[in-house]
Amino acid sequence: MRKLFLAMIAGLLLQTAGAQTTDSAWIKKISDEILTNGKAYENLRHLTKKIGARLAGSSGMVKAEQWGVDLMKRSGADQAWLQECMVPHWIRGGTDFAQASYSVPASKTKNMIPQKKGLDIVALGNSVGSGPKGINASVVLVNSFEELEAKKDQVKGKIVFYNYKFNDTYISTFNAYRDAGQYRGAGPSRAAKYGAIGVIVRSMSHAVDNNPHTGATRYDSAYAKIPAVAIGLRDADWLSEQIQKSGVTVTLKTNGTFLPDTIGHNVIGELKGSEFPDQIITVGGHLDSWDNCEGAHDDGAGCVQTIEILRTLKALGYTPKRTIRFVLFANEENGLRGGAKYAEEAAAKGEKHILAIESDAGGFTPRALGFTGSDEQYAKFLSWKPLIAPYGCTELVKGGGGADIGPLNRTLKTPMASLNPDTQRYFDIHHARSDVFEAVNKRELELGAVNMAALIYLVDKYGL
Amino acid sequence: MRKLFLAMIAGLLLQTAGAQTTDSAWIKKISDEILTNGKAYENLRHLTKKIGARLAGSSGMVKAEQWGVDLMKRSGADQAWLQECMVPHWIRGGTDFAQASYSVPASKTKNMIPQKKGLDIVALGNSVGSGPKGINASVVLVNSFEELEAKKDQVKGKIVFYNYKFNDTYISTFNAYRDAGQYRGAGPSRAAKYGAIGVIVRSMSHAVDNNPHTGATRYDSAYAKIPAVAIGLRDADWLSEQIQKSGVTVTLKTNGTFLPDTIGHNVIGELKGSEFPDQIITVGGHLDSWDNCEGAHDDGAGCVQTIEILRTLKALGYTPKRTIRFVLFANEENGLRGGAKYAEEAAAKGEKHILAIESDAGGFTPRALGFTGSDEQYAKFLSWKPLIAPYGCTELVKGGGGADIGPLNRTLKTPMASLNPDTQRYFDIHHARSDVFEAVNKRELELGAVNMAALIYLVDKYGL
Repeated sequence: MRKLFLAMIAGLLLQTAGAQTTDSAWIKKISDEILTNGKAYENLRHLTKKIGARLAGSSGMVKAEQWGVDLMKRSGADQAWLQECMVPHWIRGGTDFAQASYSVPASKTKNMIPQKKGLDIVALGNSVGSGPKGINASVVLVNSFEELEAKKDQVKGKIVFYNYKFNDTYISTFNAYRDAGQYRGAGPSRAAKYGAIGVIVRSMSHAVDNNPHTGATRYDSAYAKIPAVAIGLRDADWLSEQIQKSGVTVTLKTNGTFLPDTIGHNVIGELKGSEFPDQIITVGGHLDSWDNCEGAHDDGAGCVQTIEILRTLKALGYTPKRTIRFVLFANEENGLRGGAKYAEEAAAKGEKHILAIESDAGGFTPRALGFTGSDEQYAKFLSWKPLIAPYGCTELVKGGGGADIGPLNRTLKTPMASLNPDTQRYFDIHHARSDVFEAVNKRELELGAVNMAALIYLVDKYGL
Repeated sequence: MRKLFLAMIAGLLLQTAGAQTTDSAWIKKISDEILTNGKAYENLRHLTKKIGARLAGSSGMVKAEQWGVDLMKRSGADQAWLQECMVPHWIRGGTDFAQASYSVPASKTKNMIPQKKGLDIVALGNSVGSGPKGINASVVLVNSFEELEAKKDQVKGKIVFYNYKFNDTYISTFNAYRDAGQYRGAGPSRAAKYGAIGVIVRSMSHAVDNNPHTGATRYDSAYAKIPAVAIGLRDADWLSEQIQKSGVTVTLKTNGTFLPDTIGHNVIGELKGSEFPDQIITVGGHLDSWDNCEGAHDDGAGCVQTIEILRTLKALGYTPKRTIRFVLFANEENGLRGGAKYAEEAAAKGEKHILAIESDAGGFTPRALGFTGSDEQYAKFLSWKPLIAPYGCTELVKGGGGADIGPLNRTLKTPMASLNPDTQRYFDIHHARSDVFEAVNKRELELGAVNMAALIYLVDKYGL
């Protein structure tokens, strides 16, 4: 025991003396390994191109889980397993369809000539179908909830079109998303409250293209569940203008429905700690994606970065002091059941989680790490800035976490962190068919893994 | 005079009291205008898609100059003009061609079967043509100048292939560019010194595609000028392997030549200063591009950002105290004649330039502003960080400038600054056919203009 104590003292002294050098050297080794021999990009290619969409309950989900657990093993996990959880099983159920009927003035007479135009739409996640005949109704344009309230007597039997614009003036695009997101989440029920039979929402995006962006809606059980779709931005602009010119009637067919809950899994890989195996550091992203895209940035990126950190630590022969868990969470998009299950089991087993970090903001160039914890923990986190900043996360900021690790923070008070990549391109592709492998840059993806690995290395070495 | 003095004192007091608020409010107005009503993106579309490539001396150059001066006027310049300078006139002269001849073992016998493979190459800028028959010679692989020296007795009459790799471990890709760039610049003459008759250089890039990247080479007049091309990365990997397997002979045809110097122009727009019209702030990018691409990031982005700042200040009714010059420089890529001319005329006229800032690192998301000046000036620059950082340039760093404003700094000791966008994607497309409009993100482009405009606003208001 005395020998151990002396060894510890000696260790601490050495640590103080050479810590900065050793740490920066280790982080450089990690970075070089990822940037030179990285597998994240090719793994992402496989996930997106060979498996593709993987919404909870889908066959893509099953394939992705198997891919994930196999890859965790091949990447050097001491053990890797599937943690079962029940997941919702929403299906789109068919092809979404929307056609606008309107009229234009004839050139020589005062007659109006009827016209039709297909609209590029996508049914919102969790939304109900229109029934096989679809719905057909004139469209009431509202640019905000305030306008809905003002027009509440006009929407009965109609389709409400929320044309609330993504606010371009926010520098972080997540602020614009939070601002506009309420129309997708609460819009359908708020319109149904006044008797609307369908809803169209302007996509939550500032893209220059016309791809519609899906995402979960939430029905308020007090009102009728009505079909709800998102519309591409160019079509939204057109629809808004045309409603004001001639009025527009839209035929909408959607087929969304919930099948019974089914079995899904978190995919977990682990490197066992050599000194403090009971102290667990979790790093992860979510494995599910919407069904209309490859889910490359959301959140294939977070998954392959997670596995890349595992592969790299193993490739470098790094022996963690603490246990590091690499988790691909199930069902972030429309249920959060994976994150809930992970926290539930951690609590039930009395596990000690010292940090959870998530990458779920796209595989873009890293700019910051966010952190949620006590002031002392935050101070320690901040002290590592000189070691991490050279790799891209030049800012260590207060506030950070992720949808999937939130339950762990709430249940066990686990400090949580997030990789905050640049936000400018994210909502161009978020939940849209353009969220594909080709939109991901290899080095940006890899650097995200580098910065998270650096933080994990430091927390593993020094605790929090 | 006394009245003026009192007014100045009053002005200073007001400035101290409300400065931060006023400044942050002004910068927010600038940002909102650019992000909401910005024209940079559509201007870039016109420049890249309607005009396209615009190497010095080309018809594209002439069209771009006219576009630039017209747009300066339409964007609100008090005056806009063309500043004449002689520019070099290198032309590619035809289609670059390269074909490899090699052999593979027959499956059943020991015979070797001859094979041919086209290589994706592009002649280096300023390079000489091969003559109509081309050159045909076996290829000597060297991975560095050290290897060239070791093999110097083997290269006579041969083609030297510099397969020096872009170093992936640098976080800033410009470091990798500086490191590898010497092979493009000095490689041909160093090979010619030992009798080589042609040179192939691995493209200065870490792209995942096979597009070759051109750029200027510099012949040493002591040695023969020999044809020189860059090769795409996948073909470079193949060529390197195949040389080691069977040896490779390459037929190379290039047609580069210099025509007599011709007339080009810097495009200059100006907002006259209301208080200190003799103090000049210059902001610019370069209008020329290589002939094999649209020059969207290099440097169409810098040009449209420059004009966007002019448009925005005018749209907001901002009255500058100092004179602001908006400059699209001529001939950055293979001569720097525009930058030299601008400095020369400034010196000849005894102009007082207080700051020059350039955007020539791509239209990517802004991360930093770089600055070169005295310590006092740098301290003043640094003090503005809280005002600028919210818009993306979270770091104000020492060292900054640009190729086109370098002469002004050298001649008149003008402090200089640079917009430093994220570097990860730049060398994917730099000088390659993939440097097109579609590779530019609208908001990233606009935010670059916002951050430069913020600095210009502050220097205009407070001097340097």
